[in-house]
Amino acid sequence: MLKISGIAASAGIAIARAFILEHPNYAVERRAVGDVEAEIARLDAALAQSQTELESIKEKTLQELGEKKAEIFASHLLILNDPELIDPVKAKIRDEQLNADYALNEVATQFISMFENMKSAYLQERASDMRDVTKRILNHLLGVHFVSPAEIAEETIVLAEDLTPSDTAQLNREFVKGFATNIGGRTSHSAIMARSLEIPAVVGTKNILSQAKSGDLIIVDGLDGHVFVNPTEEIVAEYRAKQVAYDKQREEWRKLRGEATVSVDGVHVELAANIGTPNDVAGVLDNGGEGVGLYRTEFLYMGRDKLPSEEVQYTAYKTVLERMEGKPVVVRTLDIGGDKELPYLDLPKEMNPFLGFRAIRLCLDRQDIFRTQLRALLRASVHGNLRIMFPMIATLNEFREAKAVLLEEKEKLVTEGVSVSEEIQLGIMVEIPSTAVLADQFAKEVDFFSIGTNDLIQYTMAADRMNERVSYLYQPYNPSILRLVKMVIDAAHREGRWVGMCGEMAGDTTAIPLLLGLGLDEFSMSATSILPARSQISKLSRADMEKLATKALDMQTAEQVVELVQSIEG
Amino acid sequence: MLKISGIAASAGIAIARAFILEHPNYAVERRAVGDVEAEIARLDAALAQSQTELESIKEKTLQELGEKKAEIFASHLLILNDPELIDPVKAKIRDEQLNADYALNEVATQFISMFENMKSAYLQERASDMRDVTKRILNHLLGVHFVSPAEIAEETIVLAEDLTPSDTAQLNREFVKGFATNIGGRTSHSAIMARSLEIPAVVGTKNILSQAKSGDLIIVDGLDGHVFVNPTEEIVAEYRAKQVAYDKQREEWRKLRGEATVSVDGVHVELAANIGTPNDVAGVLDNGGEGVGLYRTEFLYMGRDKLPSEEVQYTAYKTVLERMEGKPVVVRTLDIGGDKELPYLDLPKEMNPFLGFRAIRLCLDRQDIFRTQLRALLRASVHGNLRIMFPMIATLNEFREAKAVLLEEKEKLVTEGVSVSEEIQLGIMVEIPSTAVLADQFAKEVDFFSIGTNDLIQYTMAADRMNERVSYLYQPYNPSILRLVKMVIDAAHREGRWVGMCGEMAGDTTAIPLLLGLGLDEFSMSATSILPARSQISKLSRADMEKLATKALDMQTAEQVVELVQSIEG
Repeated sequence: MLKISGIAASAGIAIARAFILEHPNYAVERRAVGDVEAEIARLDAALAQSQTELESIKEKTLQELGEKKAEIFASHLLILNDPELIDPVKAKIRDEQLNADYALNEVATQFISMFENMKSAYLQERASDMRDVTKRILNHLLGVHFVSPAEIAEETIVLAEDLTPSDTAQLNREFVKGFATNIGGRTSHSAIMARSLEIPAVVGTKNILSQAKSGDLIIVDGLDGHVFVNPTEEIVAEYRAKQVAYDKQREEWRKLRGEATVSVDGVHVELAANIGTPNDVAGVLDNGGEGVGLYRTEFLYMGRDKLPSEEVQYTAYKTVLERMEGKPVVVRTLDIGGDKELPYLDLPKEMNPFLGFRAIRLCLDRQDIFRTQLRALLRASVHGNLRIMFPMIATLNEFREAKAVLLEEKEKLVTEGVSVSEEIQLGIMVEIPSTAVLADQFAKEVDFFSIGTNDLIQYTMAADRMNERVSYLYQPYNPSILRLVKMVIDAAHREGRWVGMCGEMAGDTTAIPLLLGLGLDEFSMSATSILPARSQISKLSRADMEKLATKALDMQTAEQVVELVQSIEG
Repeated sequence: MLKISGIAASAGIAIARAFILEHPNYAVERRAVGDVEAEIARLDAALAQSQTELESIKEKTLQELGEKKAEIFASHLLILNDPELIDPVKAKIRDEQLNADYALNEVATQFISMFENMKSAYLQERASDMRDVTKRILNHLLGVHFVSPAEIAEETIVLAEDLTPSDTAQLNREFVKGFATNIGGRTSHSAIMARSLEIPAVVGTKNILSQAKSGDLIIVDGLDGHVFVNPTEEIVAEYRAKQVAYDKQREEWRKLRGEATVSVDGVHVELAANIGTPNDVAGVLDNGGEGVGLYRTEFLYMGRDKLPSEEVQYTAYKTVLERMEGKPVVVRTLDIGGDKELPYLDLPKEMNPFLGFRAIRLCLDRQDIFRTQLRALLRASVHGNLRIMFPMIATLNEFREAKAVLLEEKEKLVTEGVSVSEEIQLGIMVEIPSTAVLADQFAKEVDFFSIGTNDLIQYTMAADRMNERVSYLYQPYNPSILRLVKMVIDAAHREGRWVGMCGEMAGDTTAIPLLLGLGLDEFSMSATSILPARSQISKLSRADMEKLATKALDMQTAEQVVELVQSIEG
């Protein structure tokens, strides 16, 4: 038995056999071949094997997961049979006397890089498909065995270096009971995905892949961040009990769905959810969310080949507002740029995209985009309780400029006879240190703040949270972060404004006592974190947490703060 | 007459004829040629013209600028005659019936990209040389006229989109009286270079290139940031007078060389210089520097193909310490990574290098590099007044770890019988917001702080200062920056520590009154800014500046702060 510790990324206990998800290393070598026709026959055999494989996966996917997921494999089959790909490969083998794997890799790489450079979302997807198909053929040519995550059809725990978006898109939720990865942190793609799918997960184990093999019995403890490889019977029994207890606890949490969130000493805070699309609203209500604290509108702009029309946006915003039935909905205006690209905008490459031309910076420059979104929001405002929030505000002038554009569009709509709510609150994300430090001045002009900890932490620590080599500096509990949060909350309260938080930190059980103590008014998190957070807060005294927070603010390191918080839990 | 405003980047007035430095756009088209031998003759002619040209430039450079600068052109001549370059070009023309410019460009591009990928500083330079030579031949093939900045041989004002490091390396200081560029800010490469060469310069004019042509009479007013194109005689007379007045002022400043820097109300501050190599010490002393506030040790590591030995470093540090004759020398340990790469370290590409694995983060990981530097510093410490400073410290644990390594190396040296000074002060750069916010805790453990405003501003505003699209957010006078500076100074003084500043802001005439008022103890700047700063401070009252700074801290925008400071100057 082996026990490996990592970062608890998604709560729950999972016990099942290991499935190793490992992308093989395709070391394709250039070789001269004597018998060219034999080499072409070898390619044809690999193509035929891939064909059989894809057909069977497609059929299975169709039956088990529906038509939509099966479409992926239908387009893979098209590529596999495309003479524009296969003919040049064969020509290369024949004319240059090259080995099939090398010829295939050369031709496919050319197509892929051509597609990728085409700045069309559609062609970029084709590049990704072609990469998958090429790998599949190479598997057969090189005798490498690789099972795609889409093919998992029995209860398993997926073990991987990391999960890419394309991996998670193919994950079969019915069979994947949990996962553990070598790298990643609480805010990495795989961790966020696990919480949204409610799959127990431990990330950042460093070496789970080298310590476990396919078929090993695995326990993923997403509550405490442990992974067991081939546990003893005693451990399995213990964790089965823990699993039952956790399921029971979840049942208890379910009872809090219709309740308000109130601390032991009667302080009410609001628990809201972060959403990406109108479809997420069901989960918010199901988990007792008191509002939407962050509606990320980027998804409206992604996966398409031109900007979404005002009408498309209006429908989405209206749907969310209506479904939330008068509960507050904070919509963040477009936050594109940085790590989120829109191929059709054709923005120049930047050396440091996180410090670059993104979010409100881009919207103030490309006012065509900004005004369309604001019009759609203003028109939708009569259908619910809308709050508008600008991302990446660094200076008061930026806020004033953005607000002026909003008022202009409102004026125009009113002139056109369109009704617009008069109750729209207007706020900003506080995610840039300058804005946190100057929060007292901002508080005179905004209706609310929402602290975006993911970015605030990475700028304050000057460490890219996606960069493994400096991820140790992504420290939510660093006293400097807590001090900035306090500055923002105190400044807002002096002016009678409310403060929310919509970064990952807001739903973190270690952070919640501190944030309650610092006076945070609204916590916005993954919908699935709401009920545990409500339960946690209902057991805490705000007065006690204020004392705790005061101590934390005077500490020297993040480690000390974590110890302090853990001391109250014991 | 036309008056264009920009950013005053380097003080002084220059009046001379315009020289337009414009890199042509080499649109090389692929063409089939019928008469292959004629095309080869065309190439040979271009080669011969380039040869004559290069020989004459080399000769002129040798006579006017010395052997070292002439070497560049000697190696260009070698490339021009290298059969490894020329033979494949001719083969391409002959075998593929292609035009000479296309064939040359194809072959050269291949070599250049090969050299560039070789990760050797030497080969990277060859790539740069080959690019220059290729351009020169293309000039003749395409009939494009381009004069390299090295060839300027009469008094001129250089006008350019921007100046690259390779342009400035070739600038002939004797003839280039001033320059003006379309883009750039006070901290851009060209601005820093201008101050170090003491050439008046205005950057960021946006459109000087489209408004002036070669031979136009130009006035560059590097004091107020204006450029005049074909000024009237009155204006020329006015500016000749201004030039004389400025020269007189410089004479006045010269008299302050041996003086201390004291405000009207008797407060003493220290004016130190930023240096890059031991050769810069002469300039520091010549300009009355009271110390070195920042010795950037990166240059020791650059332009070579392996790490510098302990001995090489020891010699450099010892030289600086000795030449400074007991005045304090603050040496910053290696700050590599970010925009400063070392090819031989072979670091992985990062998505956001400014938020990445650099400076102390790298040194704590690659302790072999760090320990060698610390040993060299410790050994040199007996030769002067050494202060050691760690860059990019974000957490107390990083400082403690770096200090522990230093103490270990000191212990080892003492055991080996090597003498080490017992008076070395140990400090940190404050250039990351977390460290500024937590300065009170750091102040308990460090001997001094030096505020690195270049980075502090870009992290606090979340804006890459090298990125033109967000450079409007690089705001030294944003009240949030001033508040962070105040936090650091107050925290240090409460613990009896001193605070310096070594970013560009420390030498800025608008910032100096504020910094004096905030209580800054040491200002470290370009050597050439020291005497003007001393003169400026000698006319200011620290008590008045404290009141000014208090007002500035409560302002809302950078624009208001600048207005406030300008109001006292009037």
